[in-house]
Amino acid sequence: MKFSINRSRFIKTLNDVQRAIASKATIPILTGLKMSLSEEGLTLTGSDADISIEAMIANDDPDAQLQINETGAIVLPARFFGEIVKKLPEQLMTIAVSDGFQTTITSGASSFNINGLDANSYPRLPEISAEEKLTIPADILKQVISQTVIAVSNQESRPILTGVHLTVHDTELLAVATDSHRLSQRKLTIENPHDLEYDVIIPGKSLTELAKIITDDLESVTLRITENQVLFTAGVIKFYSRLLEGSYPDTERLIPTESTTNVEFESGTLLASVERASLLSHASQNNVVRLVFEPENQQATIYSNSPELGNVQEDLKFESLTGEKLDISFNPDYMKDALRSFGQTNIKMAFTSALRPFTLIPSEDGANFVQLITPVRTF
Amino acid sequence: MKFSINRSRFIKTLNDVQRAIASKATIPILTGLKMSLSEEGLTLTGSDADISIEAMIANDDPDAQLQINETGAIVLPARFFGEIVKKLPEQLMTIAVSDGFQTTITSGASSFNINGLDANSYPRLPEISAEEKLTIPADILKQVISQTVIAVSNQESRPILTGVHLTVHDTELLAVATDSHRLSQRKLTIENPHDLEYDVIIPGKSLTELAKIITDDLESVTLRITENQVLFTAGVIKFYSRLLEGSYPDTERLIPTESTTNVEFESGTLLASVERASLLSHASQNNVVRLVFEPENQQATIYSNSPELGNVQEDLKFESLTGEKLDISFNPDYMKDALRSFGQTNIKMAFTSALRPFTLIPSEDGANFVQLITPVRTF
Repeated sequence: MKFSINRSRFIKTLNDVQRAIASKATIPILTGLKMSLSEEGLTLTGSDADISIEAMIANDDPDAQLQINETGAIVLPARFFGEIVKKLPEQLMTIAVSDGFQTTITSGASSFNINGLDANSYPRLPEISAEEKLTIPADILKQVISQTVIAVSNQESRPILTGVHLTVHDTELLAVATDSHRLSQRKLTIENPHDLEYDVIIPGKSLTELAKIITDDLESVTLRITENQVLFTAGVIKFYSRLLEGSYPDTERLIPTESTTNVEFESGTLLASVERASLLSHASQNNVVRLVFEPENQQATIYSNSPELGNVQEDLKFESLTGEKLDISFNPDYMKDALRSFGQTNIKMAFTSALRPFTLIPSEDGANFVQLITPVRTF
Repeated sequence: MKFSINRSRFIKTLNDVQRAIASKATIPILTGLKMSLSEEGLTLTGSDADISIEAMIANDDPDAQLQINETGAIVLPARFFGEIVKKLPEQLMTIAVSDGFQTTITSGASSFNINGLDANSYPRLPEISAEEKLTIPADILKQVISQTVIAVSNQESRPILTGVHLTVHDTELLAVATDSHRLSQRKLTIENPHDLEYDVIIPGKSLTELAKIITDDLESVTLRITENQVLFTAGVIKFYSRLLEGSYPDTERLIPTESTTNVEFESGTLLASVERASLLSHASQNNVVRLVFEPENQQATIYSNSPELGNVQEDLKFESLTGEKLDISFNPDYMKDALRSFGQTNIKMAFTSALRPFTLIPSEDGANFVQLITPVRTF
């Protein structure tokens, strides 16, 4: 294998693919970057067994200045190779593989020799033969991911909860995540010309990484699903993730349909108040803030205290407050995550009792996005 | 104590003073911020026993909107108090101390109660009665610090080497630091109207912190020294540091006065080459790069290798190369620190043999700044 390429163009794709490459791996070759060069172009591959990312720099890419001298493939230590490429002196670099997988990287007066590995030893990527695919607008998919992954569990004790439950039926896509203390559910109407039906659980970590490669210039992302793999195609990047096995709990019944206390806030204003209160709850062992609603007096107050440091109280600014008096305590970090996921907008909160989960929905389009938080019993 | 103040103005000074406050301290009250309010203004004090910083926000500071209701003093948990102040909702905040050192911080609808400590228990700052002082241009002092602290030792086994040796005699100020592997020496001509004579060792860490509070808007910094303390005054900020006790080794004789191989480089170009070579040396156990100078062929080459990963070689671009052939190895990190301290300029390197320390000086004004690096024996 031998080729020359523009370094900036190469680094852009390298950065995308490196997201999948861990610095330590139980399968040592997975700390490597696979490069394979065909007449069509240069394909970079990285994988950590859960996620694999493959991206091609096409032969005719005008920014790449790709000059192909000899096709072939090699695996190089990813992190180290990346550091070298980023520090080379000239815009153009040449990579040449000789016998025994010795690889020479030259640029200007600088010449690196590094030990590569046989590309034939690199694991094959899953074959996804599914022809039918879903197409989702890129910005919407990115939003769905950011709104649901916040509620994913990071505890391996119930692995199924570390994923986002994705179902597709007719033209409805439903994404749900819960760590059993809070839940986030997002609905979406999509085009589904092939009447695809999906019911899968995608690891939250995979979606977080996927969101990072969905750049603003992308219009849409396509989605193909097989029994145990999902393939997202975003521009020239193919993003593979394994699926989680098992059945996701029934979450529909968790979301209350009635309420006795209702309050509307501007999300940013409430977020700032919760952030202040959490300064004290974080200093305390149980990390709890307390909200007291008094609809009769049109008063809403947030409290928190740390026996060691002190306490805080703040009258909350709300848009409207109706229903019964309520005194409820909860983990402010769940509330902060939830509020941030709405952006700057008005939100409605609905409560039934101090011990029952409460919901947050956007004041507009409330049917498509709901966050649920379980309170903490403090008495 | 009770006062109101503009939060942005307060935070600016708080940030300066917090540099001296550790989040953990063997003397618990030192994790606190001392505030004392007199009719002249509000004085903030922070200290970690080695460094103390005191800054005043004057009564008539137009940005402060300081309204003094009752003078007094209090010590508050610094980090926690700082987080609160930064998150308060309005521009103005009010701080009021009641019985038992309970302190109420209010801003808009938000009210924090935190437990303070008796300001009388806070250690007194050293009294520096010295009337005579030296005045040094702020930018020059900052440069002297950045050029010397790089060579300070971070090993407590020889505490004296963790400081910068500062001597003042007539109109010459000399600053030297060495960790016994490398040395940095900077000379300066100063005004010395009182004929002060100093020979002190200032902890490198103190100088690093001092440099951070020397902002671009400052014209000069004054320097007062007593037996075991130094006081730098930078605008409204008083910066105290203890001095290191003991006598500094005689470094003058370490700097070679003759050389047999001489080479001139543009510092940035050489730095980039050394950074590339160090990618491999860092991956190797002994972290060494090798320079080979061949004046006869007008050739200079840098090499490094890691048995595991590979090797690098690069022809260096130099301005001039004269003298004898030389093959020398050294720690590239020392070289990188030294080169960065010169900025973008031409530098001269002078060598005598592969086992003797070599020097780097700026091509212009070479008498006032020298860096010395001890090579590594590799055979």
